[in-house]
Amino acid sequence: MNPCKVMSASEFALERTFEYGSPEQNESVQAIIQHVLKEKDQALFALSRKLDKVEIDTLRVSEAEMLDAYAHVDEPFLTSLRLAIDNIRRFHEKQKRQSWMDLQTDGSLLGQILRPLERVGVYVPGGKAAYPSSVLMNVIPAQVAGVKEIVMVTPPGTNGVLGINPAILVAAHELGITEIYRVGGAQAVAALAYGTETIRPVDKICGPGNIYVALAKRNVYGVVDIDSIAGPTDIVVFADEQAEPAYVAADMLSQAEHDEMASAILVTDSERLADEVQRELAEQLAHLQRKDIALASLERHGAILLAANLEEGMATVNRIAPEHLELMVSDPLNWLGKVENAGAVFLGRYSSEPVGDYFAGPNHILPTNGTARFSSPLNVDDFLKKSSVIYYSREALLQNGEHIVRLALSEGLDGHAKAIQVRLEKEGE
Amino acid sequence: MNPCKVMSASEFALERTFEYGSPEQNESVQAIIQHVLKEKDQALFALSRKLDKVEIDTLRVSEAEMLDAYAHVDEPFLTSLRLAIDNIRRFHEKQKRQSWMDLQTDGSLLGQILRPLERVGVYVPGGKAAYPSSVLMNVIPAQVAGVKEIVMVTPPGTNGVLGINPAILVAAHELGITEIYRVGGAQAVAALAYGTETIRPVDKICGPGNIYVALAKRNVYGVVDIDSIAGPTDIVVFADEQAEPAYVAADMLSQAEHDEMASAILVTDSERLADEVQRELAEQLAHLQRKDIALASLERHGAILLAANLEEGMATVNRIAPEHLELMVSDPLNWLGKVENAGAVFLGRYSSEPVGDYFAGPNHILPTNGTARFSSPLNVDDFLKKSSVIYYSREALLQNGEHIVRLALSEGLDGHAKAIQVRLEKEGE
Repeated sequence: MNPCKVMSASEFALERTFEYGSPEQNESVQAIIQHVLKEKDQALFALSRKLDKVEIDTLRVSEAEMLDAYAHVDEPFLTSLRLAIDNIRRFHEKQKRQSWMDLQTDGSLLGQILRPLERVGVYVPGGKAAYPSSVLMNVIPAQVAGVKEIVMVTPPGTNGVLGINPAILVAAHELGITEIYRVGGAQAVAALAYGTETIRPVDKICGPGNIYVALAKRNVYGVVDIDSIAGPTDIVVFADEQAEPAYVAADMLSQAEHDEMASAILVTDSERLADEVQRELAEQLAHLQRKDIALASLERHGAILLAANLEEGMATVNRIAPEHLELMVSDPLNWLGKVENAGAVFLGRYSSEPVGDYFAGPNHILPTNGTARFSSPLNVDDFLKKSSVIYYSREALLQNGEHIVRLALSEGLDGHAKAIQVRLEKEGE
Repeated sequence: MNPCKVMSASEFALERTFEYGSPEQNESVQAIIQHVLKEKDQALFALSRKLDKVEIDTLRVSEAEMLDAYAHVDEPFLTSLRLAIDNIRRFHEKQKRQSWMDLQTDGSLLGQILRPLERVGVYVPGGKAAYPSSVLMNVIPAQVAGVKEIVMVTPPGTNGVLGINPAILVAAHELGITEIYRVGGAQAVAALAYGTETIRPVDKICGPGNIYVALAKRNVYGVVDIDSIAGPTDIVVFADEQAEPAYVAADMLSQAEHDEMASAILVTDSERLADEVQRELAEQLAHLQRKDIALASLERHGAILLAANLEEGMATVNRIAPEHLELMVSDPLNWLGKVENAGAVFLGRYSSEPVGDYFAGPNHILPTNGTARFSSPLNVDDFLKKSSVIYYSREALLQNGEHIVRLALSEGLDGHAKAIQVRLEKEGE
């Protein structure tokens, strides 16, 4: 059994899928947003009843509930979680930047000031997709940026603490997040964007969600900022004959198990490796809990791409612009400089992709669907805003005024010119 | 005559306008995009004929046409333009950042690599809104980021070099831009996103345009990156009794003359200043070429907001989150730290807003419509993409593997766990 199709790297045709939802889904999201705008908290209660089939009476998760969640996780999990938090925080601290001011010779000052966003909302999906690692990856960059208020929303469920996964509450509590609301779906996004009696509006909404959450984020974009809308996850393993087939296959499967839409692709110049990876995939698949999902992903979106040589293979990698890229070659540093488009690059045989998903420090929220051509991993900059600063001295204005006037007049904007001229006249006196 | 309404700063109610176009406009934009996808260059010719009423036979503007444009601008304009280019380039050079790598004690390396986008398209509007300054402000940050290919599109017109404003062509040529196409509207955006026989697709589209251009950018977002969709321009002048009323009024008018939708607001604690600014506005208006536009803007969207004190005034400023903010107070540095939301801040009596529009160096493409709460001036980062880099050493994997396995299993992803375990088993041998 060969789970993956094999084809030539240079002939591989990209299929990008952009999931924007149906017009009907978009209409129902818009109706939900209007409902929340009008009825606020009452709409959240009503929509949770209707859509989540849950009767909630308080939106806010209490401190007691959060502490209670600790009873549902074990000590080793806590230890691992805390180590991950430390690593992720240390990495993101390196991304921090300073405001700067630049003194000009004419006494003017020009600069750029960085400030954190004031209030950020993080959406955390419910059910099986409630991942504590995703809480860490969304919250920590915002905290490192200096965001004062970080609020979390997550759907109420039917088990546990009104269904909220205890690991989510523990992860939030470990990060010092205390403002959490049990509300999900498009209604949660609307509440974060416009505010209700209980939930004050935020400046930016981030975090993954289903198609209704994604559509709601698109609809409120402009009122607030949003992170990117994630597409299906993907990995490319770029490997030479030296690569260990068992590692290549395991890493491909770790991506394929996410979702039938996920894509795991091997790019190699070695037919022998290609054959061995096929065998390993077939064998390892049999032992996976999520083997049906992984197999469907491999069959539909997986591929083994044979390149005439590694240079040709790298050209295909750059065309794919993968979310995750493993350089499982004997000289990974030689290839790093040739990578043009990739969200995260994993070098060498020990840097398995889950190292980055959970633990090493870099963010696991990465550009999907080929958007690594122009997008970046979630990072501290995403929670900072810049302001330019201009202090023009009297000398600078007298010296440069004529140029500003001339440029303004060349564009037919004499009001702009006059704002300078009125000063040149008065100050020249 | 008092052009501006006067009201209390604390009671001022924000009206945000989000112009998304009508469903009909959006449908016609989608039809244009489909047309370009299918017929490529032929669609561009046909749509220019139909929408711009211009018969074009070659899309590319020739080198000879660009050089010919120099005959239509004078030497002083060139001098002023070149000085502006130098200033803008110098400011944006300060925004440049380095890739970094961080060596961990266990031999792992973590890092962040910055790379320029490969190819960027700049839309330059035609007609009266063809501003050479806008060419500089879009192109220079991309060049400083290191973008190799910058291509420009601008509508063909009926006069001059097939109607392209010579100052635009001169500005482009001064910047070394040689790839320019005479095509505008939604069809130009579609060509940049998807490519035609003549125009190769880009990774990002920036630059202002009318509602059709804005809608087209929204529609292709995801296929390519776009800059933000600009709303109407605005200014807030924050002034105390020491401010010069003639300067305050002139700066308000320089914003109001842009557009009837533009907003110019004075926030002050001084009733005397408020009165004098009203008088100055009325008087200066009379001499403006664009007085009808400026008056309509002041009447509809202008305001003088009286604050009980400057602290209260600053709270209102932050609520407005202006695109341009002038601190025309005797101690502007004292107030700079209290500004939370503003695209660009102008300090003191000589820093008139047109100083920043044309010449000082900072970018004039700024967050409008209150989006300074979460957005930034156009800057070098907008043309860079980041990649995370993870090199995990054997030691690091053996040491941390158990934590990664545990976190993966806590999320029910045993494929992730197995990718680590297969290595721990083999390497532990």
